[in-house]
Amino acid sequence: MPVNHKIVLDNRPVGAATAANFKLVEAPTPALQDGHVLVRHHYLSLDPYMRGRMNESKSYAQPQPLGEVMIGGTVGEVVESQHPKFKAGDKVVGMGGWQNYSVVDGNALGALRKVDTTHVPLSHYLGAVGMPGVTAWYGLCKIIEPKAGETVTVSAASGAVGSAYGALAKARGCRVVGIAGGPDKCAYVVNELGFDECIDYKQHADAISLAKALKVACPNGIDGHFENVGGMVLDAVMLRTNAFARIAVCGMIAGYDGAPLPMANPALILVNRMKIQGFIVSEHMEVWPEALQELGTLVGTGKLRPRESVAEGLAAAPEAFLGLLKGKNFGKQLVKLI
Amino acid sequence: MPVNHKIVLDNRPVGAATAANFKLVEAPTPALQDGHVLVRHHYLSLDPYMRGRMNESKSYAQPQPLGEVMIGGTVGEVVESQHPKFKAGDKVVGMGGWQNYSVVDGNALGALRKVDTTHVPLSHYLGAVGMPGVTAWYGLCKIIEPKAGETVTVSAASGAVGSAYGALAKARGCRVVGIAGGPDKCAYVVNELGFDECIDYKQHADAISLAKALKVACPNGIDGHFENVGGMVLDAVMLRTNAFARIAVCGMIAGYDGAPLPMANPALILVNRMKIQGFIVSEHMEVWPEALQELGTLVGTGKLRPRESVAEGLAAAPEAFLGLLKGKNFGKQLVKLI
Repeated sequence: MPVNHKIVLDNRPVGAATAANFKLVEAPTPALQDGHVLVRHHYLSLDPYMRGRMNESKSYAQPQPLGEVMIGGTVGEVVESQHPKFKAGDKVVGMGGWQNYSVVDGNALGALRKVDTTHVPLSHYLGAVGMPGVTAWYGLCKIIEPKAGETVTVSAASGAVGSAYGALAKARGCRVVGIAGGPDKCAYVVNELGFDECIDYKQHADAISLAKALKVACPNGIDGHFENVGGMVLDAVMLRTNAFARIAVCGMIAGYDGAPLPMANPALILVNRMKIQGFIVSEHMEVWPEALQELGTLVGTGKLRPRESVAEGLAAAPEAFLGLLKGKNFGKQLVKLI
Repeated sequence: MPVNHKIVLDNRPVGAATAANFKLVEAPTPALQDGHVLVRHHYLSLDPYMRGRMNESKSYAQPQPLGEVMIGGTVGEVVESQHPKFKAGDKVVGMGGWQNYSVVDGNALGALRKVDTTHVPLSHYLGAVGMPGVTAWYGLCKIIEPKAGETVTVSAASGAVGSAYGALAKARGCRVVGIAGGPDKCAYVVNELGFDECIDYKQHADAISLAKALKVACPNGIDGHFENVGGMVLDAVMLRTNAFARIAVCGMIAGYDGAPLPMANPALILVNRMKIQGFIVSEHMEVWPEALQELGTLVGTGKLRPRESVAEGLAAAPEAFLGLLKGKNFGKQLVKLI
């Protein structure tokens, strides 16, 4: 059996997460039992939700246990199989974690899924045609439910979720306005992803200023919003919502570190008869097949051209993850393991 | 024609509303045109939404115009009719405003509705079997959608909306916990309205303390909440919500005066995958018949015994309204005009 390297959560963050919270350790991979599959990971996905798992307090789900391999989505290739449905060479997507190899029970429902790399590059199954893409799909189609002609917005527009959201919203006839950090990301959002406009939040000192820019970019107001960040962006968007606006809340990245960020003016929920709804896409597995089919077609036909930030080697994962939390990535953040 | 007295909005509040914002004026009632009906009001309803209308800024709906009679629900008796569907002596409910008489177009859809006072006292058509009752019904049945055995909460539990909410939730097999101000109101909520528990928010200095009391009163957490107030109560309830909790937002009374009140920890929307939705019951007229039927039956059979605070005479309306905003009323606030 090959020697495995993995990154475990060594201690929990006090305030901001740091590289010292993680530890790289060597571990042998266990012998394959009947029905199990050994996968060598090609790419590891880094996602904001992992920050929530690092805390002991209640977050999305169970906290990440100390001393165990960090949770995470992976794509890779089957090396050895004791399960009739998988054979060496199969390309697969799973939740292998921050390590080079994983052993997976091939019978566990949804634990390992074979994918076709004819039209879609393997890494995209961690982004546009994976969890982030389905996240965008669920928020847009099941919570926002936009009508053609409506205006919808999204924070972190250049990221994996935001880019998929833009393509899905354009396909539904919406005006789509992104919010991102810095001129390069904003140019990419408009020129490569096909958003109607993109606002650089770094040009705005507060929610009032950002709301003024949103007023220009969204002359008919905002009917739907997908929130990946929280804080100032959400406050600004709420100021520009139309009656019966819907906000899907998928990320509150700005609030994970330190004190909770308040919402400035919740009375707007009533004034504009808004719906604000939080969700976790892994609790809605029933939509994945439909969502993945549409997302795969958008990528395969070039209507969605997702960008990736790729860190090299497992040891680079912690720094890449901390950069993601600070918005340093440009597109889907991956770690290339092979 | 009788001489009418009415209260108009004389000027808009700066900060808190005061009696000086209103003016009592005398005005003749116009001659009846074909299809019109002259109504003498017996009771005027005072409701928190009126505070929102007093501002120039965007709130529930159009602002109350300066110099015009204050908007408000009324019950009364037809004095004279030029409409075949109404005759003198009919008991009717409408939106007659803060005045003794109103002239209503009998053909305007929903402007005037005849009511039966055999089993339900006339004044209750402004409360439990009127707009506040339907408000409770809509929030509970259409937004919270509780299952039997779930725990639901409501702020301002002793008020017109809260009392109807309690009866409706008990009828659906829920555990119902109220939040109200002062021991008298809390005793009434439990002993007369049949709530399982009621918490006196005045005994708690902050949301953390109130959340601890909620933990005791709601040992299985909170699945649904109806928010009439906002601020500390909402913050405390959010801390005790279960996964997939639903919050219907119908009032943000604490935020009308002065600066907006923030929501302390909106990240909980995501952590608990909550839905928070604001609504105005007048935008959902389609549910009124079904809701009024259930509410009328609850009152007629004694399962809902609403309490009223009654001010005497039109001139008393402004002070009674300001008292309502400060929580001085006990049950539905009315003004008796005859």
